[in-house]
Amino acid sequence: MSVTHLDSLEKIVSLAKSRGFIFQSSEIYGGLGAVYDYGPLGVELKRNIQGLWWKAMNKAQENIVGIDAAIFMHPKVWEASGHVDGFNDPMIDDKQSKKRYRADMLIEQYILKLRRDGNDEKADELQEQLDTTGTRKGLCEDLYDIIMQEEIRSPDSGAFDWTEVRQFNLMFKTHYGALAKGDDDVIYLRPETAQGIFVNYKNVLDTARVQVPFGIAQIGKAFRNEVVARQFVFRMREFEQMEMQYFVEPGTDGDEYEKWLQTRIEWHKSIGIREENLRVSPHPDDKLAHYARAAADIQYKYPIGWQEVEGIHNRSDFDLSQHQEFSGKKMEYFDQKNQKRYIPYVIETSVRLDRTTLMVLCDSYREEEVDGDNRTVLKLHPKLAPTKVGIFPLIKKPELQDLAHKIEADLKEDYTVLYDEAGSIGKRYRRQDEAGTPFCVTVDFDGVESEGEDTVTIRHRDSMQQERVSVDKLRDVIRDTMKNWKAG
Amino acid sequence: MSVTHLDSLEKIVSLAKSRGFIFQSSEIYGGLGAVYDYGPLGVELKRNIQGLWWKAMNKAQENIVGIDAAIFMHPKVWEASGHVDGFNDPMIDDKQSKKRYRADMLIEQYILKLRRDGNDEKADELQEQLDTTGTRKGLCEDLYDIIMQEEIRSPDSGAFDWTEVRQFNLMFKTHYGALAKGDDDVIYLRPETAQGIFVNYKNVLDTARVQVPFGIAQIGKAFRNEVVARQFVFRMREFEQMEMQYFVEPGTDGDEYEKWLQTRIEWHKSIGIREENLRVSPHPDDKLAHYARAAADIQYKYPIGWQEVEGIHNRSDFDLSQHQEFSGKKMEYFDQKNQKRYIPYVIETSVRLDRTTLMVLCDSYREEEVDGDNRTVLKLHPKLAPTKVGIFPLIKKPELQDLAHKIEADLKEDYTVLYDEAGSIGKRYRRQDEAGTPFCVTVDFDGVESEGEDTVTIRHRDSMQQERVSVDKLRDVIRDTMKNWKAG
Repeated sequence: MSVTHLDSLEKIVSLAKSRGFIFQSSEIYGGLGAVYDYGPLGVELKRNIQGLWWKAMNKAQENIVGIDAAIFMHPKVWEASGHVDGFNDPMIDDKQSKKRYRADMLIEQYILKLRRDGNDEKADELQEQLDTTGTRKGLCEDLYDIIMQEEIRSPDSGAFDWTEVRQFNLMFKTHYGALAKGDDDVIYLRPETAQGIFVNYKNVLDTARVQVPFGIAQIGKAFRNEVVARQFVFRMREFEQMEMQYFVEPGTDGDEYEKWLQTRIEWHKSIGIREENLRVSPHPDDKLAHYARAAADIQYKYPIGWQEVEGIHNRSDFDLSQHQEFSGKKMEYFDQKNQKRYIPYVIETSVRLDRTTLMVLCDSYREEEVDGDNRTVLKLHPKLAPTKVGIFPLIKKPELQDLAHKIEADLKEDYTVLYDEAGSIGKRYRRQDEAGTPFCVTVDFDGVESEGEDTVTIRHRDSMQQERVSVDKLRDVIRDTMKNWKAG
Repeated sequence: MSVTHLDSLEKIVSLAKSRGFIFQSSEIYGGLGAVYDYGPLGVELKRNIQGLWWKAMNKAQENIVGIDAAIFMHPKVWEASGHVDGFNDPMIDDKQSKKRYRADMLIEQYILKLRRDGNDEKADELQEQLDTTGTRKGLCEDLYDIIMQEEIRSPDSGAFDWTEVRQFNLMFKTHYGALAKGDDDVIYLRPETAQGIFVNYKNVLDTARVQVPFGIAQIGKAFRNEVVARQFVFRMREFEQMEMQYFVEPGTDGDEYEKWLQTRIEWHKSIGIREENLRVSPHPDDKLAHYARAAADIQYKYPIGWQEVEGIHNRSDFDLSQHQEFSGKKMEYFDQKNQKRYIPYVIETSVRLDRTTLMVLCDSYREEEVDGDNRTVLKLHPKLAPTKVGIFPLIKKPELQDLAHKIEADLKEDYTVLYDEAGSIGKRYRRQDEAGTPFCVTVDFDGVESEGEDTVTIRHRDSMQQERVSVDKLRDVIRDTMKNWKAG
């Protein structure tokens, strides 16, 4: 048997659409850029991933509780967090085409072109200049100077007719309430879910009887007006985060950071991701975000390269201190046992649900050639599979349909099942292979005609092996196979 | 024992805050109007309700599939649906106070005042005038005329200094993408989740192998810039809907409408809502929305009165026909068996998750006086309870703590549990009563000192009865009690 792993993102995009995992948003209207809808299989896959994450957070650890904060928050929150001032990209407009570009990316593309032209010396020089552009304040001027100095032209129009470089805030704004329009009723769609946790830290302390160290977990949507949004669900303008903020005593933050980094890598393996496709990429000290003492990406080897699926950050007491300052409310924790008072440090684990879903699809994808026949199969962890069992009467005859429906009704109590009686058995298997369904149960005449108990054929997705089992034993076979499943 | 049911919304608001069910959004910044965050208990309650709804929709019926469409959609969607033109409230501004009012509500309040003053004749006359105001087009003028004619004054400033009456669209707008600002990049936050289903109807038909009749279910956030937003989570600007659109053959829509109305009432009962607090309120024919052939509210008797928790609507082929017209894509279904081609009719079941959560809290709330002692208890359906089992060592001694932790670890596999060793047993019971926890397990010296197997006390929330059971039997008692639970 020859097996091919995934070699391009396009194959996943195509499978996701044809099988009903993920569709372009508002497709009948030509689509909306960088927004996607989850179809029947996609929503089940996503719910399963979400459920396992929630269980891992809230059930495995007695000291983690959940919350669900709203997308709308008081605008002061985003002043305190630094997003109003700092959550910007430096943009420049081509006056001829009216198109807008990220100034730093424009320069990077220019450097790449220099290298392609063999002009490495000049490229190195510019790269150094780009790496040492000013911090937030001087950045726009520095980038503008490089573009002017090199006379970098617009990739689309070829013109050299630029506006200034300006900071473009990535938060979506809207007007709130029924007041006459004005700047004072502007609110934002949250660009991250984390702040919903920080502003509820005191509420949780007051009501949930938790003691440091403890965590608050949350799953929810966030929105960023990404200028360069692409690569399918990898970088979207509307996306879903699964975040847990772990509040610890200062001084223990280093150890807790390491512990959570390991815990989260293990979680990715536990949902069936192959170890060789995961790696940790620590952020170098001089590239840390303003709030971070330490940070690392958990990266997955997507067909587009190694990319972040999750971030682990030591956010120090930055966020709570900021909210203390901006809200005037004390954010200190009193450690009764040791009679100490402090603002806790925060270790953040932040994973994108959409990227996890994409990772799961990519990692499970196989093209197999078996005896001259081809199949595409998603070897999903059975816990994640949208449909657990396909149930097929061999042909449309009442005696087979009746038993098949009986099995369907029985298994439905505990599993998502799909009854399908259309097309050849081979075609039905292939459809379920592409949906990642781990088991198919076929009801044939041998099974219902045999003396005594009814039997059926159960076909295993990964090995394609079939075994004849009595209907009473079906649950045991399914349960045992699911329990012992390993990524192959 | 004397039992008091809920008599005011304030009691729920207060309990929700003190126990960590629901907090005001951004509370440390003074809050954000008509937006709420779910705390540790609230998020578990909400997830349980959601899970039961999803299971009822997707598992009980083989012909219902799920989707999860994005909040952002192509702006054409809201032209087709009628929201851009018609989703308005008629507003009028007091020029003195700069406050804005809903013109029709202003008049209604004035009519109430007339009645209080004994001027029923005038009130009746005005009511009739209000009931016959023009449709969308003439509405603003008609309302303005009444306000002028009666010289209705501003409730806040007392002034009679009004602007015109204008239509105020309830959709939140934002600017999308990195284009220079202009009207062509305006998109909306969806004011309902239903359209996400309609625009994906063809995708589902093409990929999910469904045949009419079939349904598409979805849970998600929607946003409305309500002018009069109040009554806790009952009317929020950001809220969550659980909707299912059922696509049927025209002519069968009457029966399907009745069937779904019954099915949904049964569901509310199945999550423990008392029958006497539920009723159906059909919309009279002359008050139907423009898209509806028939509509009814399922109402719950909230402390603020009978109010809609769910709507069942026969939407006819309005939405699919509109999208066919606006997108140019055929929305017809071909019935192969009968060789018929038609645009399906749609029966909609649309329930607000937040209102369901509020209903569940209200319906389960009791104040009880037992032998001179008072307790507040949430008699939640055990399936909905955020915490299933509280586990208490009688006092902080290792031999009790060890067994308690062992029980905790064991039960945690299947249930949400809470370990608590602080305070008197009585106080711990009361805390769990207020959280709606159906079982408390107390580990005492009698239990660990007895010969042979360990025993514990299990205390039932509703009856407050305690029974001594062996640790091995705990799961059975919990499972059986949950299965046989009835709302009392």
